Amino acid sequence: MRTVTILGATGSVGTSTLDLVERAPDRFRVKALTANCDVAKLAAAAIRTRAELAVVADATCLAELERALAGTGIAAAGGARAVCDAAALGADVTMGAIVGCAGLASTMAAIECGGTVILANKEPLVSAGDLVTAAARAHGATILPADSEHNAIFQCFDFARPERVRRIVLTASGGPFRDASLDEMARVTREQAVAHPNWSMGAKISVDSATMMNKGLELIEAARLFPVPADRIEIVVHRQSVIHSMVDYVDGSVLAQLGPSDMRVPIAHCLAWPDRMATPMEPLDLVAIGRLDFEAPDPVRFRALALARSAVEEGGARPAILNAANEVAVAAFLAGRIGFLEIAAIVDDTMQRYDPAAPETLDAVLAIDAEARRLAGERVEDGVA
Amino acid sequence: MRTVTILGATGSVGTSTLDLVERAPDRFRVKALTANCDVAKLAAAAIRTRAELAVVADATCLAELERALAGTGIAAAGGARAVCDAAALGADVTMGAIVGCAGLASTMAAIECGGTVILANKEPLVSAGDLVTAAARAHGATILPADSEHNAIFQCFDFARPERVRRIVLTASGGPFRDASLDEMARVTREQAVAHPNWSMGAKISVDSATMMNKGLELIEAARLFPVPADRIEIVVHRQSVIHSMVDYVDGSVLAQLGPSDMRVPIAHCLAWPDRMATPMEPLDLVAIGRLDFEAPDPVRFRALALARSAVEEGGARPAILNAANEVAVAAFLAGRIGFLEIAAIVDDTMQRYDPAAPETLDAVLAIDAEARRLAGERVEDGVA
Repeated sequence: MRTVTILGATGSVGTSTLDLVERAPDRFRVKALTANCDVAKLAAAAIRTRAELAVVADATCLAELERALAGTGIAAAGGARAVCDAAALGADVTMGAIVGCAGLASTMAAIECGGTVILANKEPLVSAGDLVTAAARAHGATILPADSEHNAIFQCFDFARPERVRRIVLTASGGPFRDASLDEMARVTREQAVAHPNWSMGAKISVDSATMMNKGLELIEAARLFPVPADRIEIVVHRQSVIHSMVDYVDGSVLAQLGPSDMRVPIAHCLAWPDRMATPMEPLDLVAIGRLDFEAPDPVRFRALALARSAVEEGGARPAILNAANEVAVAAFLAGRIGFLEIAAIVDDTMQRYDPAAPETLDAVLAIDAEARRLAGERVEDGVA
Repeated sequence: MRTVTILGATGSVGTSTLDLVERAPDRFRVKALTANCDVAKLAAAAIRTRAELAVVADATCLAELERALAGTGIAAAGGARAVCDAAALGADVTMGAIVGCAGLASTMAAIECGGTVILANKEPLVSAGDLVTAAARAHGATILPADSEHNAIFQCFDFARPERVRRIVLTASGGPFRDASLDEMARVTREQAVAHPNWSMGAKISVDSATMMNKGLELIEAARLFPVPADRIEIVVHRQSVIHSMVDYVDGSVLAQLGPSDMRVPIAHCLAWPDRMATPMEPLDLVAIGRLDFEAPDPVRFRALALARSAVEEGGARPAILNAANEVAVAAFLAGRIGFLEIAAIVDDTMQRYDPAAPETLDAVLAIDAEARRLAGERVEDGVA
């Protein structure tokens, strides 16, 4: 029986995690669930799973949460500090699914307890990768990636013999504009950019998929998670997203993980690892899918890839700046303030204008994140040259 | 430093094995090499690798072998019994690459030494599968499959948790007639049948690939090698033969091994297992390959699949009869005596006419093999109805 804490239990990944945990009551017991401010959903999940503790990050929602849980015996708490305290209870498995830099501190608190921490948010590895991996080593925590690509690599990677790995091949759907011309991309609308062909996702990550910055961020994550230098991590466009990624060994064998485009598959792998648990997915039907295609990504139309690669190769604060500037630029695009191709231009510009020393604390990461956002925001105001 | 014995060192698999062993003199030391009667090739290999012993199965070639090895300090021997004695020296790793039932006794002798035995010939698992797997268990031998499909499954299979495997997906190129009509297949010539699209192979196995009996025999082997019942082993036609096979787990993850169509990849995996060794193959280039296709095999045009499935499900002597009748029928087709579609008809007919008890000794297997050949030969003479 494993205890499970879900940080960000009411979002997409949190809901999928709850679904799996609730299907296997003989394997999992819920310790704590946290949300930002969706009290109704959080309280209902806490009651269904008989959680010990429910926490709202937004302290103004605490009174409502207390009312919803009155008489259930489930403890309630509120505020950012309370989210970290929930993470620090040290469940056997903690799912870190809080979006953005808001999830950094609580994820780190869980890692410092030394258990298994599932990462479903990018910031811990992209913006604070050196700190997070060093903390995991220091506290004996196991980090499992819930992203379908990194989870695929994890399943195929021989950690006992990393020197036998020749390459990691990270697959990318290529997003909705993989076949568009540069001219067409310059005129892309918000609606076109958020319509991802394979995965149902939020607006921010859909735009990241359309610019391929999502794959750039995944390249950075992969270089943190696996003992392989970034120049041996290749990106291949595979429009059907059936092969989630691959590991190429020195003997010529390539191991790959395939599966449906449903986050419950990698999440289930993380929850049950090293065992496996049943999920309600239909078996993969390659005959029905028919064909899988592969092509090289176009560096001209997808500038984000080169920006991300240089960020991970330069290291230090560079990935945090890339990520922060990208968030600001994507928000400006979604607000109709800049064009689609200006997203990468703003990221590039911000990285050129700002080059601080490598952060050595989470607070330093957050300060770099804030300054990069300010600089990127300035450029949105000014208009990109 | 591992000692290696190669049973069948001058054939295609034996030559590939020697190539790999000679590239890694710091890892492997050759104990014994055997061949049927290619003295020049055998002696040259024994001298290059400083083998302890070289054996010709055909005792009439022994004098020539002794002359070729005079003054080298390498021992020479001849005859079927000497091949078994070489296997019984108990190398750390023995490659069993002798084609046909001739390889049965020596493979079994190696298994009885309890080391690692690489199986590159079908007969041990198809015709004597129960005996071979029981001997491996009794003597603590490890059987590693060198066939690209079974090697792929081996690399993806979690032997610690076989109950978490939902399906094995065995991929098949579909052979040269995957797109042919039944009428066209009825008129197929020897030359058309031996032209395999992906692999360079001998005439017998090329015809087996064209009838898909090769995949039927592999289905039988897979059911022997892996603790999964035959009805959970699916066959999918994948014309590019890039994915060599897959394992589908209960959580929806499918693990696959991909690679070039070069036998040195699976052989290197077996030689170095659980470590890996470098091979001279170029990395797999999926962008250059472009696409992978999948379709269901046609049971009407490829009757061999259903015959093999019923043979493995019925068990006992059935797979040995299937294999023996198929060898006779393929030889008759290659000799121009029967049509392409009559191959499966003769196998079916032989299986219907002959149903002995399950063999309990290797001699019983050989007797069943001989009788099935006699019956199949009878039908070739008579002409199939």
